[in-house]
Amino acid sequence: MSVTFAQGFRAGGIVAGLKPSGRPDLALLVADRPCAAAAVFTTNAFPAAPVVLSRGRLATGRAQAILVNSGQANAATGSRGRGDAERATDAAAAALEVDPSLVLAASTGVIGRPIPMRTLLDGIQPLAASLSPDGGAAFAEAITTTDTVPKVATAGRRHWRTGGCAKGVGMIAPNLATMLAFVTTDAPLSPASARALVTGVLEPIFESLTIDSSTSTNDSVFLLASGAAGGAAVEPGSPGWADLASTMEDVGTSLVEQLAGDAEGGTHILVVEVAGAAADEDARRVARAIAESPLVKTAVFGGDPNPGRILQAIGSSGVPFDPDLVGATIGHVPVIAAGQIDPAYFAGAGDAARRAMKERTVVVEVSLGTGPGRGRILGCDLSYEYVRINGEYTT
Amino acid sequence: MSVTFAQGFRAGGIVAGLKPSGRPDLALLVADRPCAAAAVFTTNAFPAAPVVLSRGRLATGRAQAILVNSGQANAATGSRGRGDAERATDAAAAALEVDPSLVLAASTGVIGRPIPMRTLLDGIQPLAASLSPDGGAAFAEAITTTDTVPKVATAGRRHWRTGGCAKGVGMIAPNLATMLAFVTTDAPLSPASARALVTGVLEPIFESLTIDSSTSTNDSVFLLASGAAGGAAVEPGSPGWADLASTMEDVGTSLVEQLAGDAEGGTHILVVEVAGAAADEDARRVARAIAESPLVKTAVFGGDPNPGRILQAIGSSGVPFDPDLVGATIGHVPVIAAGQIDPAYFAGAGDAARRAMKERTVVVEVSLGTGPGRGRILGCDLSYEYVRINGEYTT
Repeated sequence: MSVTFAQGFRAGGIVAGLKPSGRPDLALLVADRPCAAAAVFTTNAFPAAPVVLSRGRLATGRAQAILVNSGQANAATGSRGRGDAERATDAAAAALEVDPSLVLAASTGVIGRPIPMRTLLDGIQPLAASLSPDGGAAFAEAITTTDTVPKVATAGRRHWRTGGCAKGVGMIAPNLATMLAFVTTDAPLSPASARALVTGVLEPIFESLTIDSSTSTNDSVFLLASGAAGGAAVEPGSPGWADLASTMEDVGTSLVEQLAGDAEGGTHILVVEVAGAAADEDARRVARAIAESPLVKTAVFGGDPNPGRILQAIGSSGVPFDPDLVGATIGHVPVIAAGQIDPAYFAGAGDAARRAMKERTVVVEVSLGTGPGRGRILGCDLSYEYVRINGEYTT
Repeated sequence: MSVTFAQGFRAGGIVAGLKPSGRPDLALLVADRPCAAAAVFTTNAFPAAPVVLSRGRLATGRAQAILVNSGQANAATGSRGRGDAERATDAAAAALEVDPSLVLAASTGVIGRPIPMRTLLDGIQPLAASLSPDGGAAFAEAITTTDTVPKVATAGRRHWRTGGCAKGVGMIAPNLATMLAFVTTDAPLSPASARALVTGVLEPIFESLTIDSSTSTNDSVFLLASGAAGGAAVEPGSPGWADLASTMEDVGTSLVEQLAGDAEGGTHILVVEVAGAAADEDARRVARAIAESPLVKTAVFGGDPNPGRILQAIGSSGVPFDPDLVGATIGHVPVIAAGQIDPAYFAGAGDAARRAMKERTVVVEVSLGTGPGRGRILGCDLSYEYVRINGEYTT
């Protein structure tokens, strides 16, 4: 049900002809009336044109529609790209009869190539005609690039519904940059409350994902709140706030796990949980160093624990800790203890760790023994297929 | 001629039986008398036992011998490992009749496994007996692990000779951690002058190398100066200082290029040169972001320019610059201009860039347009073979 699970939204997705593959490539999400809206965007110094446009329009905290194209990222396209993003959203606004300042944009695809604007503009009317309260699946399909499956999630608490969809799956494949996520809720929210949910709940969840250490030019996570469920505005401190936040957490967590599971060439999900750091930020840095280590990622692909590589990654993270207190497990099997490879590992206990490495999801837990800081990062392995997808492509 | 090109040194390497492969695995470098000596070591928080030992003994700025074993890294081995490093160097000191405090150590191989000490100790006498002023090649061979060729280099200026050898080739292969380098000179140096050459000349050269973003537990670069060439001590400000420093630069640069050329699974050397940053450190960060990007590395493997990936890596480096001023070339062919993919790239100029990507050495030049800062990083591509070597291994 994706982005139309929540009341007050319609969506659609069509084949406009932007992708050579002929798969759906133009998508639109529309609320029945202006929504409280918030988003977080890539920190890359070369943000794509639609990122610049959406960030600017969201200064008001309100939006009613999001136009998404796949096939061209509209990144590194300069003033022409900025003009294209304006023209595309203007056309959508006209078709929807809403104020252009309420229409946001997202793009994903080849960096540097301009969008074929005539093709896109020709698609706006049929796209608007396809909008439906059941259009969430078509929307989720049309935003994908190298994704092998659409990613959708829903959650409900009290009388509120929250839904969403995302596409991945790394900085990504054949130049097809981007992680995009769209979350909708029918809870009534102020712009400030929507912003609090994005930065407080959704952002940390999406930041915990690392496919190939690459921050794309287009990454965006949007939240639109229609208020269609009725009732009083929900805000921090409201009786229902925690429940509403937990719907965001459920949807975000599910989408991120689906993204990790569909990583380019990925055959395993790698979950790294670090405890005992001086601060949460330190714990996340250690977890990220492990999840992004090419040696750990190839070890996960190969199904062999190689605890020395985990130790090496911890030690190169730059985070302060006492090496003699460090421990680690793979699938709850101790492999590092007191800063050394656990002697039992070479004596046979390695077999249990080796079995844990064959699971679809491989869990590495690290204890630094220094403080209360905790962090969790979700990643994937590094396979032949990753090299094939990203190495055999020709622009 | 390696480490015995300079006068005043003998070296040797033998099969002690530490490696299952039966290849040479125990090496010794000895000076005729105590030398000025200096070294730089890994910044990993889990330094190997021989790193701890050598760093401690080098506090005096003097050393006479270095014992090296390959097969076991003696890292993450705790107090047992520290004791083993002591016993090994004590045995070498006794065989050489030198003070144990003048004997340094280096190890490379599997992390976490103890050295089979009886095997090592049984090798000390035959190793000492094999020492020769022509033993540099045997030494260079015995320190290797997954290296396909030994790396040796020599340089001479005035009446001074400088030589060296190194092994790689990444954090590295099947748990075989480490980059080790040994440089000798017969110029007369004080400990302070030796230290100045290591930190001022050799360290920046070796720091410019990145194979797989992984800092091993054992990385070490040693310099021993025998003074056997005679004459007055050379020191900063001496008439010959620049000449002597240039021998270090030649040897270091050659070794680093050989290491990049023998990177695990590598089929191309990737040279990234960044200019126009606010500071040199910023330029190196941008260069490193490009050289370590898995998307750029797979693009180099695939032989396709993919300039969007270079742009993405620049933009995610965290370094401040004006995006509109950024340019980049591949093999001197412009691919990014004014912060955009150069329109000519898609119009046909891409062919020239594509040809440049097929060269053994691929040169990416980036201009940030912000300031005078420059930096250079040497890397390699990411291939199927890298995944095979590191993924198919079983501990």
